[in-house]
Amino acid sequence: MKLALEAAKAAAARGEVPVGAALVGPDGTLLAVDGNRSLETNDPTAHAEINVIRRAALALGNYRLTGSSLYVTLEPCAMCAGALVTARIDRLFYGAADPKAGAVETLYRIASDPRLNHRAEVTGGIMAGEAASLLKEFFRARR
Amino acid sequence: MKLALEAAKAAAARGEVPVGAALVGPDGTLLAVDGNRSLETNDPTAHAEINVIRRAALALGNYRLTGSSLYVTLEPCAMCAGALVTARIDRLFYGAADPKAGAVETLYRIASDPRLNHRAEVTGGIMAGEAASLLKEFFRARR
Repeated sequence: MKLALEAAKAAAARGEVPVGAALVGPDGTLLAVDGNRSLETNDPTAHAEINVIRRAALALGNYRLTGSSLYVTLEPCAMCAGALVTARIDRLFYGAADPKAGAVETLYRIASDPRLNHRAEVTGGIMAGEAASLLKEFFRARR
Repeated sequence: MKLALEAAKAAAARGEVPVGAALVGPDGTLLAVDGNRSLETNDPTAHAEINVIRRAALALGNYRLTGSSLYVTLEPCAMCAGALVTARIDRLFYGAADPKAGAVETLYRIASDPRLNHRAEVTGGIMAGEAASLLKEFFRARR
């Protein structure tokens, strides 16, 4: 999660909403770390989670990331929660809850929905204070 | 939707699950057409909808696709429904409903959820028979 927080800080420095993610393989190997890049790449799907999932799958040559763990500083939105189900990620650790768009515990429970064909173990609140502070500071500076 | 169906057929020919999508701009211009490419690109996020959203946003140099319409042969999953909200797509037309993963009407209503910061007008059942036949034929052939 420390690496994800560093990636969130780097995103803020690029003018992106400060969210960062890290993906760790079944054996503990770090597969990818990245932050939001929606503005930089003109890509609405370039959230931190999608970036690390795409990069890791490409590097492994496998569109399934079974057994891996995703660390992200903010509760994933519906797109990212859906992506982690599609990618068969087994564990999700997130920082701050997202009251506006959180889709794994707050508004929806997409990552643990028994109706879908894959479920992840979800743990929130990891270093949540630091993750939330980064976001608050970023949006306060822009108002 | 005819272009989306053609893209779905092309996906099947590549061994991908036959789903296709087309994105049309506010003025009726065709922005992108593509099918699933998850296997080919080793990218779990490379669903037809994500592919056309990414391509159109890149071409327009804007991560928001306000005013555009998405045509897709199958009801979007949570990832793709979330992506169309994130991309600010205004209208969604889909073909067959997806009882297992459909996230705009079947399991969730992500594209029209008043709690999220954007909503699309959703119309299902467009050329649904042809879209469903493609999928049935594809999966029957693989069993």
